[in-house]
Amino acid sequence: MLSALDLARRIESGTLTPAAVIDRCAEAIAAREAEIGAFASLDIAGARARAQNTGALHGLPVGIKDIIDTADFPTEYGSPIYAGYRPRADGALVSLVRRAGGVVLGKTVTTELAYLHPGKTRNPRNPAHTPGGSSSGSAAAVAAGMLPIAFGTQTGGSVIRPAAYCGVAGFKPSFRLLPTVGMKCFSWSLDTPGLFAAGVADVAYAAAAITGRDLRVDRTAPLPPRVALVRTHIWSQASEAMRNAVESAARAAENAGAQVSEVTLPTIFEEAFRAHPTVQDFEAYRALAFEYDRHRDRISPILRDLLDAAAAITPQAYDEARRTTRRARHAMTELMTDFDALLTPSAPGAAPHSLASTGTAIFNRLWTLLGTPCVNVPGIDDEAGLPLGVQLVGRFGRDHATLAAALFVETAIARIAAAAPNS
Amino acid sequence: MLSALDLARRIESGTLTPAAVIDRCAEAIAAREAEIGAFASLDIAGARARAQNTGALHGLPVGIKDIIDTADFPTEYGSPIYAGYRPRADGALVSLVRRAGGVVLGKTVTTELAYLHPGKTRNPRNPAHTPGGSSSGSAAAVAAGMLPIAFGTQTGGSVIRPAAYCGVAGFKPSFRLLPTVGMKCFSWSLDTPGLFAAGVADVAYAAAAITGRDLRVDRTAPLPPRVALVRTHIWSQASEAMRNAVESAARAAENAGAQVSEVTLPTIFEEAFRAHPTVQDFEAYRALAFEYDRHRDRISPILRDLLDAAAAITPQAYDEARRTTRRARHAMTELMTDFDALLTPSAPGAAPHSLASTGTAIFNRLWTLLGTPCVNVPGIDDEAGLPLGVQLVGRFGRDHATLAAALFVETAIARIAAAAPNS
Repeated sequence: MLSALDLARRIESGTLTPAAVIDRCAEAIAAREAEIGAFASLDIAGARARAQNTGALHGLPVGIKDIIDTADFPTEYGSPIYAGYRPRADGALVSLVRRAGGVVLGKTVTTELAYLHPGKTRNPRNPAHTPGGSSSGSAAAVAAGMLPIAFGTQTGGSVIRPAAYCGVAGFKPSFRLLPTVGMKCFSWSLDTPGLFAAGVADVAYAAAAITGRDLRVDRTAPLPPRVALVRTHIWSQASEAMRNAVESAARAAENAGAQVSEVTLPTIFEEAFRAHPTVQDFEAYRALAFEYDRHRDRISPILRDLLDAAAAITPQAYDEARRTTRRARHAMTELMTDFDALLTPSAPGAAPHSLASTGTAIFNRLWTLLGTPCVNVPGIDDEAGLPLGVQLVGRFGRDHATLAAALFVETAIARIAAAAPNS
Repeated sequence: MLSALDLARRIESGTLTPAAVIDRCAEAIAAREAEIGAFASLDIAGARARAQNTGALHGLPVGIKDIIDTADFPTEYGSPIYAGYRPRADGALVSLVRRAGGVVLGKTVTTELAYLHPGKTRNPRNPAHTPGGSSSGSAAAVAAGMLPIAFGTQTGGSVIRPAAYCGVAGFKPSFRLLPTVGMKCFSWSLDTPGLFAAGVADVAYAAAAITGRDLRVDRTAPLPPRVALVRTHIWSQASEAMRNAVESAARAAENAGAQVSEVTLPTIFEEAFRAHPTVQDFEAYRALAFEYDRHRDRISPILRDLLDAAAAITPQAYDEARRTTRRARHAMTELMTDFDALLTPSAPGAAPHSLASTGTAIFNRLWTLLGTPCVNVPGIDDEAGLPLGVQLVGRFGRDHATLAAALFVETAIARIAAAAPNS
């Protein structure tokens, strides 16, 4: 994988040029893209022509999930309804990337309209397995060393899950830290842009670069965080390997000096977990009204079924789900007075052996609903060599602290892996 | 003016056809549009062909502010950057109008990108005066009897102010009651769709029709509300005529049985008033990044100046403004335990005698920031015969109560006007 931070440092010090970085991406793309299918569209020559050492991103190439508008690339939202569509304007995130000196190398594959119907992408760690979704191409492109940075979006678990499945760092910032302007909307209360890179310090660096916020975690070693091991009410739906991964990450963090406690969430969190689909689907029935009303025959069965059912959700049920959300957000704020981050699974297990499903967001939707920062920390594999991501969840607005805690856990895991006899 | 509710009732009872309503609009358009310039585009023949008595809107014609995407009409956002632009999809609001049985008759003029640079529209009550903005065409089309219902959007005061200037009812619902999907974003924390119609019961009927919510106020006479007369810290910037209008509306409401108290807002509201531009401008610099970065020369000086200055707003200043907002929202909720609505000016006075400026949003921005429902109540004119709207502001999520209070005040004002010797 390409570490964005390493590349940036080397460009800064003059030992590497932005064009050389693009050459490296181009080599990886030539070697692996035919098999992996991470890109919806690509412009290597254009990126090479534009790449200059400017801004905080120093000309680094970036991938943009094809759910975000681009004026210079087709934008098809993974849907045949938008075949050949070329938006008039870039989404705000794309402009922020450019303002920071990043260069868009290509659009990455999204599932259909960022829901569950898969695109063409395969998991670089084992191409018979799903890369996860909906930000399939962004996670896979980073995992395959084809890009140092890629952007995605999460409404259920669409950043953290594919990051976990592909074994890369994924960062879903606090709700609204990154703008959704020019992103195809699925649920306006939930849609959250996020990003992928090789490691935690890399996603933090890229997020800092485009927001101008103090999010970097590479300048000083992170202090030992106060971590709550949270199994959640769906712990039994996590595989044994995932349960072991979370518990060994907790032990590793504790051994490295973190203060680790086991916490059982109050029941309001379970209510919020159940409220997520009500909020999401009520809004999707309206956000995708044009597609549903005018192009029903070109929507996949899985999304059509969702929207058919969503039509019956009443405003009263939606309002109640929003009130539950508000109560759970207060409960989360209260809980987080004692902790810097929660540690919990990123997904039920490793990437399923299937290309027909992108897996499930059950370990993500609660945190998306609460709008909290989430980080997938890679570094633990299952017996078959597939990655098992663990998730650090922070307090709303405390993105730096969450990233710092995630880096601490990532470092602790790496130390254990290095010490293990079979590593 | 055309009362949407009257028209709907007559269609329902079989004494009027939707096509006949469109004919009436077409007559008013033929008579006045050349002078008023309310429409960015129009399709009378198409609307006549599509108009059927279905849904809660019974085939009524509707105008959509040209800041909201339409697949069947050009969408130019009032900006030369988007000349001839035809979006691929309708905005969610447009789909909701269609689902409710409404027919889009045309797109109404917006100021440039919904900011201050005016479009071609004139005030139907006196064409030498501004109609207000940014929803200029929607307010003017309703005021001139060219449409029974028109949609607009408000980020500062872009629904309530033009409604006041043109003498129609305007309703800015609670934040996120109406979807912003497919609407050109200026500020994602503030942009709020709203609507215009002849009277308060008409806007309530139309809002109920497209949301499926219990918002109608025409079925029973509204109970006397508890009203707080709120002069705000900028009362001295209201004209004498406006101050008299608000005070006489308060007396009229009191005489009709409302409980009216005078309330001085806590200072947090003044802080929130000052926080509004920080939130708006920080977000606009990102939401309009593509236009600013790529088409700077085609942005008006007034908007370019705003964006130039906005580039300097730090994330820290923005976060602080957001925290102020949150505190003010809590203060508002607390205040509203004692009241059903606040009564306050809709604008500093009647529409200015100018077509170069659309006036100022100083009496609106606080409420937009707080996300509270706001209604412009027409019915009081100044000595020159220009309308002076008064504003009812409710508690977040209590849109029905706010509309009911507004109807009560509207009825009380009408009773006084009818009793006045020179009416």
